[in-house]
Amino acid sequence: MQKIGRTFMEMTRYAHLPPSDQQRGVTPPPLEKPYHDDGTAIALPPPESIAPPSCELREAIEMRSSVRTYARDPLTIEELAYLLWATQGVIEIVDPFYTKRNVPSAGGRHSFETYLLINRVEGIVPGLYRYLAFSHRLAPVDIRSGISDSVMNACLGQPFVRSSAVTFIWSCIIYRMSWRYSERAYRLVHLDAGHLCQNLYLAGEQIGCGTCAIGAFDDEAMAELIHADGVEEFVIYAATVGKKKA
Amino acid sequence: MQKIGRTFMEMTRYAHLPPSDQQRGVTPPPLEKPYHDDGTAIALPPPESIAPPSCELREAIEMRSSVRTYARDPLTIEELAYLLWATQGVIEIVDPFYTKRNVPSAGGRHSFETYLLINRVEGIVPGLYRYLAFSHRLAPVDIRSGISDSVMNACLGQPFVRSSAVTFIWSCIIYRMSWRYSERAYRLVHLDAGHLCQNLYLAGEQIGCGTCAIGAFDDEAMAELIHADGVEEFVIYAATVGKKKA
Repeated sequence: MQKIGRTFMEMTRYAHLPPSDQQRGVTPPPLEKPYHDDGTAIALPPPESIAPPSCELREAIEMRSSVRTYARDPLTIEELAYLLWATQGVIEIVDPFYTKRNVPSAGGRHSFETYLLINRVEGIVPGLYRYLAFSHRLAPVDIRSGISDSVMNACLGQPFVRSSAVTFIWSCIIYRMSWRYSERAYRLVHLDAGHLCQNLYLAGEQIGCGTCAIGAFDDEAMAELIHADGVEEFVIYAATVGKKKA
Repeated sequence: MQKIGRTFMEMTRYAHLPPSDQQRGVTPPPLEKPYHDDGTAIALPPPESIAPPSCELREAIEMRSSVRTYARDPLTIEELAYLLWATQGVIEIVDPFYTKRNVPSAGGRHSFETYLLINRVEGIVPGLYRYLAFSHRLAPVDIRSGISDSVMNACLGQPFVRSSAVTFIWSCIIYRMSWRYSERAYRLVHLDAGHLCQNLYLAGEQIGCGTCAIGAFDDEAMAELIHADGVEEFVIYAATVGKKKA
């Protein structure tokens, strides 16, 4: 058999794509993963109340580098809310078809959920959380001690996961994209994940943070940590964030 | 057979990856596609000479949307040079292993080449060009009339390709990435392509341009236009840019 990457690229050419469920008239899936509200979600500061320091776009682009060592300083909850807003903030919900967010997505499908390993954010118990983008809240997923080590291990032992203030973990619910784009969705969700990670890098610069994207992780272990099956919902990308050392 | 996307994700898990050529001690490939200098390349204004208008990062993020209709105004060559710098500008060459650029790339591999369909840039004959990132120049690839229609057709007839001032076309030379990451490279190059497209969106905002990413194109036709084989070098992403209408 020819190598899988080459086969994948060939079989996701338009000439080889099966019709999408949208083309077949199937109802679109929900735009956000269901969340059963048990009263534990934390409201985040609304975007209009957050005032990050002024930052020139060009400076953010040119100063950016991948940073793997961090100061011990925590992030404020406002800073965290800003990073979430910059990467996945919802501007408009055009139910049932698509959302407009602060990043572009093919067909406005936005097939991601954001999970956060929080190590050092003021006022938030360390642990694993999920960002509820539609209501701009954080929901605890796993706040047992040891979760930071588990995420580090799932990221193939990369130690800056544990020393980060926050590690963003983006999962992909593939059907949100494949409903419209069939198998080509697997290309598109990776392209889309790059958009939001780049915004994380730049918004991080603005608040004095360094960022490091992580594409090397144990897919099964990462999926298990966020209670995903690894197939219909899988971890697609991750990135550590922390205050830069002086 | 199970669907290709799912198989691809499964077979690019670390447990299934064959050793990479880097692990096997193979010499790394060149960091830029060879270019045979015939004296026709156009020098671009150096980055330090370009002064785009001031732009707040947050404003660029929040104002961004995908724009498919453009004013007739051309871009200046400085504006084009700025967009190229923001998306693929080379900060440092650490030969033979990697480059540092204005976007992050897994392992610093930066496995892209940038091609441009130029419709309206002051002082540049319309046509298809390649950006020589290492020397910050533009090399003509095809300046015959009709090239704009050909690119539009290869983008499945999306008319804003022809009405754009410039359409960016990013190709991927996969071995630059797979040398280090084996088959997982195919995930990583798509993530990386998202980084640079996001920078294009933001830098475009800064100079009064709208942008629209294009993930839907005829892979074979696009490869042929840039004289690539579509397998070792393939088009991975594209995006139209043009001045916003008043």
